[in-house]
This record gives sequence, C-alpha cells and structure tokens, in this order.
Amino acid sequence: MGGLRLAFLFGFANLVVATPVDIFHGYGRNDYWERRAELISDERSRELGSDIVLRDDELQANRAFMKLKLKELDDAFLDPSKFLPAHNFIAIKSKIETSEVFKILKDMPKGAMLHAHDFALVSWDYLFENVTYRKDLFMCDVNGRKQFKFFSYPDKECDWRLLSALRKNATSLANLNREIMEEITMKTDDPDKTYYEVDSAWEKCQRTFGTIIPMLSYRPVFEDFFYQALLEHYEDNILYIEFRAILTPLYDLDGEEYGPLDVVKIMKTVTERFVRDHPDFVGARVIYAPSRLVDNDQLLEYLTIAKNLTSTYPSFVAGFDLVGQEDKGKPLSYFANDLSKLSDGIKYFFHAGETDWYGTSTDQNVVDAVLLNTTRIGHGYALLKHPKILEIARKKDIPIEVNPISNQVLGFVRDLRNHPASMFFANGYPIVISNDDPGMWGAKGLSYDFYEAFIGIMSRDADLKALKKLAMNSINYSSMTETEKLKAFDIWERKWNAFIAYLNIRDNSL
Amino acid sequence: MGGLRLAFLFGFANLVVATPVDIFHGYGRNDYWERRAELISDERSRELGSDIVLRDDELQANRAFMKLKLKELDDAFLDPSKFLPAHNFIAIKSKIETSEVFKILKDMPKGAMLHAHDFALVSWDYLFENVTYRKDLFMCDVNGRKQFKFFSYPDKECDWRLLSALRKNATSLANLNREIMEEITMKTDDPDKTYYEVDSAWEKCQRTFGTIIPMLSYRPVFEDFFYQALLEHYEDNILYIEFRAILTPLYDLDGEEYGPLDVVKIMKTVTERFVRDHPDFVGARVIYAPSRLVDNDQLLEYLTIAKNLTSTYPSFVAGFDLVGQEDKGKPLSYFANDLSKLSDGIKYFFHAGETDWYGTSTDQNVVDAVLLNTTRIGHGYALLKHPKILEIARKKDIPIEVNPISNQVLGFVRDLRNHPASMFFANGYPIVISNDDPGMWGAKGLSYDFYEAFIGIMSRDADLKALKKLAMNSINYSSMTETEKLKAFDIWERKWNAFIAYLNIRDNSL
Repeated sequence: MGGLRLAFLFGFANLVVATPVDIFHGYGRNDYWERRAELISDERSRELGSDIVLRDDELQANRAFMKLKLKELDDAFLDPSKFLPAHNFIAIKSKIETSEVFKILKDMPKGAMLHAHDFALVSWDYLFENVTYRKDLFMCDVNGRKQFKFFSYPDKECDWRLLSALRKNATSLANLNREIMEEITMKTDDPDKTYYEVDSAWEKCQRTFGTIIPMLSYRPVFEDFFYQALLEHYEDNILYIEFRAILTPLYDLDGEEYGPLDVVKIMKTVTERFVRDHPDFVGARVIYAPSRLVDNDQLLEYLTIAKNLTSTYPSFVAGFDLVGQEDKGKPLSYFANDLSKLSDGIKYFFHAGETDWYGTSTDQNVVDAVLLNTTRIGHGYALLKHPKILEIARKKDIPIEVNPISNQVLGFVRDLRNHPASMFFANGYPIVISNDDPGMWGAKGLSYDFYEAFIGIMSRDADLKALKKLAMNSINYSSMTETEKLKAFDIWERKWNAFIAYLNIRDNSL
Repeated sequence: MGGLRLAFLFGFANLVVATPVDIFHGYGRNDYWERRAELISDERSRELGSDIVLRDDELQANRAFMKLKLKELDDAFLDPSKFLPAHNFIAIKSKIETSEVFKILKDMPKGAMLHAHDFALVSWDYLFENVTYRKDLFMCDVNGRKQFKFFSYPDKECDWRLLSALRKNATSLANLNREIMEEITMKTDDPDKTYYEVDSAWEKCQRTFGTIIPMLSYRPVFEDFFYQALLEHYEDNILYIEFRAILTPLYDLDGEEYGPLDVVKIMKTVTERFVRDHPDFVGARVIYAPSRLVDNDQLLEYLTIAKNLTSTYPSFVAGFDLVGQEDKGKPLSYFANDLSKLSDGIKYFFHAGETDWYGTSTDQNVVDAVLLNTTRIGHGYALLKHPKILEIARKKDIPIEVNPISNQVLGFVRDLRNHPASMFFANGYPIVISNDDPGMWGAKGLSYDFYEAFIGIMSRDADLKALKKLAMNSINYSSMTETEKLKAFDIWERKWNAFIAYLNIRDNSL
C-alpha cells in the first residue's frame, strides 16, 4: 500500500497542525511511512470505539461533526486560552454552552447515566429558583452558615426565619441571593483558588450536602426534585439513570418521618410516574450508598438495610456502595471481611481510587473493589497506577465510571488533558462517562461531562465511533435486566438514527 | 502462607493511613487476604526498582530513610497544604530545602544527568551573582526588555550602558536587581497565574534564553559558566552529564567568533580540565540540538554539522536532537525522510511528546522518534497515550527522560501526582530523571527533580530500591563507552556504599 494512500486513510493530512505543510512532498512509496502507518493503526485499533463500524450515513455525519471538533481544537491549539477543559468548569461553564460541539453533544442520545448522587442530581438553577422560593421554607444563620428547612411552625433549635420574608425585607436582595447560592452550591468566583486542594473542595462539597439535604428531604420537595432529576436527564437525551443514595429520612410538615424503605418506595413511585409521562425513558435504579465514615458494626447495619431494600424492591435497588471522601474515610480493606462474607445477593458498586495519593490505603481501594467483585468501579482515578487491576477490569469487563468535571472541581486535576482516563481511552478499557454531582457545580444532565471528555480527555481523532461506544457502554453496563436493555437499545437506536439524520440535514443546510 | 505473615511482608500495617486501625483484628488465615497480598505483590513486582535486591546494610538504611519519607507524606496527607509537589516549584523551592528527605537525596549518588540544555545548566544564583556582576557587561533597555552583552566598546545597535554604572546610579538597586533577575530567569511571584498556559510559560522560557545567550556567549564567561555547570552537578553527587546544545557562536571582546566546532572544542577542554580537578567525575557529552523551527534545507545543514562534529569529536559528541516547543515547531514527521535516510553514524536523542495535546502531530512525535531509532526519548510526556510505543520502548529498552519540574513550570501539569510518569514507574518502564533547565526556575543540580519524583510521582512505597535503580539507569542509558560505564559504576558504587554507611551512622546518632 502506498504511503500516500495510507496517509489519506489515517488522516495524516490533519496531523501537521501548527505548520500545515505537506509532509509527503517529493517522497513516494517509502518503508518509513508504511511502518509509521502500521504503528498508528495499531494504536488506533486499541482505542475505545475502534470496534464500532459506522454506516455510510454515520460516516457522513461524522465528517461534518469532526470538522466542528477539529476547528474548535485547532483554534485552541493556536490560542490555548480558548481551550476550556484546562480551566475549572465553574469558571467556563457558560463558554462551553457556546460551543457547537457541545450543542451537538446535547442532542446526542447518550444512553444511560450511571454514577451520580441523589441530592446533586438536579441543576443549581432549579435548586435556587424553584426550591428556595417555595412556601414554608425557613432559613437560619448559625455563625455565618445558613441552614434551610421546611416547617409549619419552626422548631426552637435555631432562630428560624421565613425565607420569603427575609427576601422581602432584605436591604440587598442580590446579596442575600448570592449568599444563598454560594451556600447551596459550590459556586464561587475563583474556583482555582478556593478549591486548590482536594480537601478544601471536598469539605465545601460535603458541607453543601449538609446544607441542602434538610431542605430537599421535605417529602413534597423531594418528590418534585427527584422528578426534576429524571426530567433534566431525559431532556439531556439520557434514557435511564442509576444513582447512589444515602437514604436519609424524609419528613412531612406534620412530623411524619420516612425511613430507607419508604424513601426507596417514593423514588420508585416517582420513577414510574415519570416513565408513564415519558414512555421513551426506560427508568432508574438506586444504589444504596451510606457514608464510609463508620465502624464495622454500623456497616453490618447498613448491609442489613441493603438486603432488606434489595429483597423488597429487587427491580429498583441495584446494589450497595459507600460514599464520602475516600482519603478521609475508612479504606475498603477495613470493611473487607464483612463485605466479602456478606455480599450474598447484593451487588457492589464501589467508589474506589478517587484519590491522587499513589500507594496509600485509599489508592489500594481499587484492589479491594475488584476482590470484592464490584460490578463497576466508581471513579477509578487511581487505576492508572494499577496495571494488574486494569488487566482484571478488562478481563472481567468491569467498567470504570469516569466523572471528568467532578474530578476537576474537587481538585484532583486542573487541566483535564492530564486526566488518567486518556490512558483508559487509548487502551480501550471499559468506560462510562457520568456526572457525579452536576447540581454542585452548575452542570445539568450529562452533556457537559461528555464535552469535557470528548474535547479534553479523548484523542483529537476520537469521533462518533467513540461516542457511540460510550452510549452503548452505558446501557450495557447498567443494572437493567436483559429485557430492559433490549428496550433501551431499541429506543436509543431509534434516537441515534434520528440524531444522525439531523446532523446530516443540519450539515446540508449550512 | 498466612495472611498475617504476608501482611507483614507487604507492609499492610502502613496501608491504613487516615484511620490507623488493625484491619486483621479477629481474622486469621483467610482467602481474601491471600488473594489481596498476591495482587499487591504482583503490582509491586512490576514497579521500577522491583528487581533490585538490597543488602542488609541497605535495608537498614532504607528503614530509617522510609521513616522520614512516610512521616513527610503522612503529614501532608493529613494537611495537604504541606504537600509540595502539588505547587509550582518556583513558589515552594525554599520549602523543599527544609525537607529531610531532600537533604538525603542531595547526598545520594544519583549517577548521571542525561537531559538538560546548555545555557540553563547553572543555578540562577550564579547567573545573577557572578555573571551579571562581571566587568564589561553592558545592558540595554528595548521597550522594557533588557538585553545584556559584553563589550570593550559597545556597538551602536542599542543604547548600551555599563551595568556596573547603572547599578551604582540606580535610584533603587533592589528594583533594578529584581528586574534583572526576572529578565534572566523565569522567577515570578505568582507562577500559577503567570505560567498557567503552556504557551505563556514557553514564551517566557524562550525569551529568557534569548536574553541570556548573548551574555553567556562571551567566551571567558562561557568557559566559567560551563565549568560551573559541571561543578554544580558534581556537588549534587552527579558523576557525568549529557546535555543538549544549540552551539550558537561565542565571541571575544576583540571581535573573534567561534563556530560549532570551536564551541564543542571549548566545552571538551573545560570538561577535561574539570575531570583533572575532580577525578571522581567521569565526564560529559554534548548532544547537538538546534531549533526545530526550520525547513528541510536548514535541517540538512544541521545534519552536515552534526556529522562533522561527531567525526571530529567522537568521544564528546553523543548525537543529534531538535529543540524548541514541539507544539509550535515542526513535528518530527516533517523531517522524517531526511532523518531516516541520513542518520548514518549519528545517534538521535529526540525530544518527543512534550505536549498535552492528545492526537495532534506533536503527540505523534513519539511514533516518529521510535521509528527513527532514537536512543532515548526526551520527555515522552505523551507516551501515556501510546501503548504501542511504550511496548516498543520497553522491548528495545529505550529510556524515557522524565523532567518533573520542567513539566510543571512549563505548564503541562500542576499537581505532580498527575504526572504521567506515575504510570511509567508503576509499570517499570525504563526511566531516567533529569532536570532540563534548572537555572530557569531556581533549581541546582538534580536533587530537586529527584525530590519531586520521589515524593510527588512515585508510590508511597517507593524506596531506596527505586532510587538505586534510577541512579543505575542513568549510567546504563548514558552514551558513555563500556569502559567509561565500568569506571562510572565503580565510582558510583563506592559513593553509594559510603552514602548507605552515612545513612546508618546518621540514624544511629539520632
């Protein structure tokens, strides 16, 4: 095969970016270029999505789509200040929204979203504009920290004031609202500074959960909030979600409390209502995921609850996990004896290796996760340094739930080009992209994370093949039954084909 | 083998960091723990240095040394603001100097230093305190940028003023000196901001070279400067260096100019003098490395010079490379036809993959470097995303020259825990640690880079085995002849044993 033909096949023409010169000038058939093409072809064949064969209509759409991607990347290559994944998401979210690639990724049927946390599933706009404007919401200021809760009559534990009244009487409503926003989300003007350290970012994240949970645990709000969570993902072209929930008690204004079984029932009921309202949404499942900051006795209680939940709602409860900052909580090895003995019937979905600390107990959570037969690995940020565990993950087909924006905002990596998932993509490890806590940092649905992964983490050459693979992975690696998966694939494929058709129409009309 | 015994062997007791609890409490022999130990053992056996077997005296020294390392790491784990490799080196250099681990790394015989650039080999203190205070040095201010050159009588091309006179008459000497320092180095108060982008960091780096080269190209200064370069590395327990040189002309005050062959001869002579003065220093070699910002005709001229140099000074000229920011210069593929045909007799030491841009022409320089039979890979930052090239590097034993501080200061990575070399260490790829441009950012010798690698990039468990391996690698992968290598190993081993004895005496006296 001639060098020139190979060059065309492998897109050499695009390789010389900064200096667009014809590298074949004057040279014909040449061993060097054949060997080079073989090496590049070998590496491409390992990349995620390399097994996907695009149809003609997809190839056509791909060409138009890649033109947009390469323009965006090459502009940034010449002026790196335009390269958004190098900057904290909180600072450049609005710029992402102007990207043509992002707009298309929003339209793209992305399959399922498999890793996120209940109380951060919904955009901060809804949280602020809807929830904080509801009647009966009280606020209390304790040493500069705001607390929020719904009451008919506030308790005496705090100097509760009706938020609507506070807003009416505020000397500066803008200030008050800004303060509220910064209390119920991680919004800040200088995220690079505020969240420089993982620990300070995590502390703010945990504190924010502590602030919003009492507000969101009011049963009517919780139901609306959860419906909204499904809606925002649905509107972002997601057809199924799987999320971690700590299952803290809900409350009603009359003092009634709802325990884990009730909460799951409520979420299940809301999900069923949502699916009735949106028949092209397949559903949701919950992974019971209480805090890892506990002792063995507490863990045993958790496992008892988990068994109870899975036996009562087998089609809605997917399994068990532990949450909280891994570096500050107990490593999985601490719980391993109980977890390895008592797992019967319960599937694990462990957070593991969400850490920068190579060689620590936290770093080795990836070892325990695999030994404990985890169904998926949450984050797996540390897996890069664990060649054996990566081998096992590939062999046993254990997917890694990659959360680009979360890892950045929580301080693990600044420039997403340094995210370890680049290596997972390059080697075709099983990956799904998820959003972790979109409501914390201003994301909505999954498209922002897809954008960051596609532009910031994946190769310049990664295209619709890789994106299609990610969507298919998300359905394949979900906890849906085989029947549900077939249904999901059926819906997804229909939407995917419509998306391809739209891309082609769009391209022709430009 | 019982779980407990394995646990001891593999240091489980150290694994639980944040929560130091006994994970074996109440459990005896157990399949889980055996399998866990096997997995961890498997991963450790892949790590760089795992093939090194320490003697008893080394094991004793290692225990004392690791106590210091683990204390430093665990303190930082609890208070991450103390973790220095997460911060730009320019901002925390003085803090590194207070580290006990750093002090020991300074004393450690580190072998050879194989990747640095001629005009940045020497500490900024020498540059400022010695060179800028020499007689006949003139300064000229052009649009706020300072130029420096030695003259008997300054030329008319600029408004040259004698620097000693300027200093005498300065309204604020401190201000003038600060301005000079910031012009001749990359020193800045806020490196995170100033060098946020790779491009801005590179621009400043290149501009600084442009500023200091005319000053350092004055032959007497050049000779002293180069002697000082050898001395600073020698004093940092390095016994051989290999460096890239652009071989720009030197000048004398009487107008005489010295071309590439003269410059090499001068460096060779200085090296021989240095080795006479310091018989336990083995020597130095130069890699001719002109700018990659040229066309094919210019490259052919370079290669002619390279052949001339290697045939004239075969024991001093190691080979050929191209320098300059890869993203802005020509990719190797542009020159590949000439480089692949004309390499006879010239060894290549290509910079390749010093980029964050996955999938670009620059990223693929690692492919061409390997195809062009490079002897070593300079940086190879992008190799993480090139599984096939990594396979070849391992098979053909092509070492990767890792420059931790350079990659950080030049904006490729902020927190060094995200440096791709973590994965190279975890997989035992052939690595050497080098310093690239120590004079640019306030380093001196190689110990700072060893510190950053040891604390920031390598595993918490990495110990004297890995460090010994790095030192041995640096000698093995150098361009020394076999006889020179034997001599180098002989000197190094003697020093290494003295270092081990010192560590043991030091520990006993604490």
